[in-house]
Amino acid sequence: MPPLDLLADTLGPQGLLREAGDVAPYAVDWRGVYRGRPEAVLRPASTAEVASALRLCADLGLTVVPAGGRTSLCGAAVPTEQGPPSVVLSLERMNRIRALDPLDLSLVAEAGCTVESVQMVAEAAGRFFPLHFGAQGSAMIGGALSTNAGGIRTLRYGNARDLVLGLEVVLPDGRVLDDLRRVRKDNSGYALRHLFMGAEGTLGVITAASLKLFPPLLKRETALVAVRSPHEALRLLARCQASGAELVAFELIGRPCIEITLKHALNVRKPMELSTPWFCLVEAGSTHPSIPVREALEAALMVALEAGEAEDVILCESEDQRRNLWDIREGFPACSRQEAPGLPTDTAVPVSAIPDFLDRCAALIAERYPEGKMVAIGHMGDGNIHLSLQAPPGTTHADWARRGTGFEERVGEIAVELGGSFSAEHGIGQSKRAAMAGLKDPVALSVMRAIKDTLDPAGRMNPGKVLPPG
Amino acid sequence: MPPLDLLADTLGPQGLLREAGDVAPYAVDWRGVYRGRPEAVLRPASTAEVASALRLCADLGLTVVPAGGRTSLCGAAVPTEQGPPSVVLSLERMNRIRALDPLDLSLVAEAGCTVESVQMVAEAAGRFFPLHFGAQGSAMIGGALSTNAGGIRTLRYGNARDLVLGLEVVLPDGRVLDDLRRVRKDNSGYALRHLFMGAEGTLGVITAASLKLFPPLLKRETALVAVRSPHEALRLLARCQASGAELVAFELIGRPCIEITLKHALNVRKPMELSTPWFCLVEAGSTHPSIPVREALEAALMVALEAGEAEDVILCESEDQRRNLWDIREGFPACSRQEAPGLPTDTAVPVSAIPDFLDRCAALIAERYPEGKMVAIGHMGDGNIHLSLQAPPGTTHADWARRGTGFEERVGEIAVELGGSFSAEHGIGQSKRAAMAGLKDPVALSVMRAIKDTLDPAGRMNPGKVLPPG
Repeated sequence: MPPLDLLADTLGPQGLLREAGDVAPYAVDWRGVYRGRPEAVLRPASTAEVASALRLCADLGLTVVPAGGRTSLCGAAVPTEQGPPSVVLSLERMNRIRALDPLDLSLVAEAGCTVESVQMVAEAAGRFFPLHFGAQGSAMIGGALSTNAGGIRTLRYGNARDLVLGLEVVLPDGRVLDDLRRVRKDNSGYALRHLFMGAEGTLGVITAASLKLFPPLLKRETALVAVRSPHEALRLLARCQASGAELVAFELIGRPCIEITLKHALNVRKPMELSTPWFCLVEAGSTHPSIPVREALEAALMVALEAGEAEDVILCESEDQRRNLWDIREGFPACSRQEAPGLPTDTAVPVSAIPDFLDRCAALIAERYPEGKMVAIGHMGDGNIHLSLQAPPGTTHADWARRGTGFEERVGEIAVELGGSFSAEHGIGQSKRAAMAGLKDPVALSVMRAIKDTLDPAGRMNPGKVLPPG
Repeated sequence: MPPLDLLADTLGPQGLLREAGDVAPYAVDWRGVYRGRPEAVLRPASTAEVASALRLCADLGLTVVPAGGRTSLCGAAVPTEQGPPSVVLSLERMNRIRALDPLDLSLVAEAGCTVESVQMVAEAAGRFFPLHFGAQGSAMIGGALSTNAGGIRTLRYGNARDLVLGLEVVLPDGRVLDDLRRVRKDNSGYALRHLFMGAEGTLGVITAASLKLFPPLLKRETALVAVRSPHEALRLLARCQASGAELVAFELIGRPCIEITLKHALNVRKPMELSTPWFCLVEAGSTHPSIPVREALEAALMVALEAGEAEDVILCESEDQRRNLWDIREGFPACSRQEAPGLPTDTAVPVSAIPDFLDRCAALIAERYPEGKMVAIGHMGDGNIHLSLQAPPGTTHADWARRGTGFEERVGEIAVELGGSFSAEHGIGQSKRAAMAGLKDPVALSVMRAIKDTLDPAGRMNPGKVLPPG
């Protein structure tokens, strides 16, 4: 039987797409930047079917690209353009919540549940699942864990891996690694689950996860603060951290980001006069009405104003006002793409090095790319700034990408020089393999390769991702 | 040159102990349960010296047992009795704090710093390092991370691995893996650091770590609550979690534990009438004076009393009273050894399964070990109960160990049947290798073995630990 017929036989009619029109959506990432040519799409509906599919692919020597919501910004979930013949393994039909225990503050979700659906299930049970990022309506748990997604609330709750109690993983040879425990302490050998989180499907396929829940945030207080410099933003962060108001988010937003969003987004309003170059979007939360979070945040902001370390402050009076601030923040990436081509980056530095990082990036742009404009926005509380080099009006994407050759790598280098990382929360995928080759510790790279060769000796799992060509 | 002379040459006169009297303390664990015969003790003073030493040991084919404070309860840090000729590699001379940044809330400590010294350095800088367990005055950071230590405060701050931003590790062949970053987001490839945490020195030697700090706890409120059953304790936990008082610890203590400690410990006082079989030691904390943590905790305790779910409550009025409660809790392990031989266990189950777990263990004891007495104490908020089977008066250790054959394994089995772990916070070391063979998922074991073979193909790092024979 031809290979695809064998797979069809194993997975049933809903489990295999092979018509060109059905396969096409899985061949390209959502921004249309990465495009491959999968032979078919496997859509298993259970862990047992994932195991059968991977066993069969191993027998047939087929290359497998695991995919969830396919919202990766680095092309992790589509086959590479020049890669070997491959199938996409979509987890979309594995979308059950297998268990929910409010008392244990835990939930077991299959890989194909969207991040947002997990948030909603937790909320309905009076609990809170804190993972939160722009693509959460499409992004699926399996992908969010495979890439160790970050986002807005890591300041308080950590990255995706920090929210995991246990994993179920199907290995490249079809064996099932069952570590789906719901306990908070488990020291029975090597922490294998952490190997699969951040591996972007190159070591196996995450099929389900036991996730931590938290008490719900009953109150949120949100403020926008106009500051003159990243130094002032840093001082404000320290004041807020010491205020007793538990910070849930602390975003740094450059003025151009707000201007661009006000220009392109529907339904957002100018929140204040944009008289300073930088703004901080601060959110604090509390899990109980007795905690005076508004008073604490307000006091910190007043002290900053009086000390001349902030130019202007809005402390939201309504959910509508709060929503407007977050719409501006979260609307920026899409609006930015409407405004002009950009060269985005995703780095992290120690929080105290952010002013230095921004100064050095500004100097780099002034020296080498003077026609470009620096736009910076990001999760300041984690040191994770998304800095982009925006093209002058009228430049095409292709021209700007050529002009900006080396920009992303150089920004990554600056981050590494400051003790940081050239890849903070988006992962490596296809787009940062060159940076991996140039900036990652060679010993770490060699250990990664050894582990890859051990778990996937034939190199069939998501080839051309994460590890640099070697 | 003979091997030990070569090592002496590399490490200098302070760097090598070879006289029997100098080596003896490293041959035995602190409880005197595990005893090996190391040929010498290496005491490198820097990462470069650890690297040279491991390179040389690789060349010489010497087996290496990494050691820190040697407080493991599982014999992880002493050579096995029947093992191959080995040297102990003590990290005790690597005890510098390399960096401290209060604004970043981070600190870089070498492996030989004691856990307590890291707490003190953080405190002096107005910050808080939350890892806290009985042996913290002797236990060193390298060992605490290699075993992913747990303790009292994991409920709020996580296990040791959750407190790590980056690691420096010397691999078995002497290469240095430099992942000592201080950033909170780093998705540049596989999360190698998590592999070394929990590996108990079988994959390499942790030489330094970048650790997370927290704002200090300015207020702590501590209560002892008498409850009639683990079910009531569970209800109390839920009430406290919903109270707005941020829990830092929630310990379950069986009445016999308090009685034993009152009998043997100096300087502890009876805190209340011991009229119920179970007690909860509850601590909540706040990072700011404006947070009404006492009021919140008090309200929760009053509701529990009024609902008839608690029999008696003490909310501490003084640091002296608080200290007394913790002295009782933390004094128990030593007092228990004075009282009678015991067969201790270290399991975790989902929090909601604790009553069932205790019921099933009680039934096991009644059926198979009726002359023994169940004593249980532990970190209820993490589901981590330390249950021990205490010998009747006059029994010797050796007799009781023989009589209790299979007890620890059966308790581990019950935990696993309830979705938990047979090894919660103490690790595997030598003592739980049989349990690993019997209770760990065979696929996980096979992946662990494959990783071990990849990173330490000659099997020279801490042989006879963690992985079962096979």
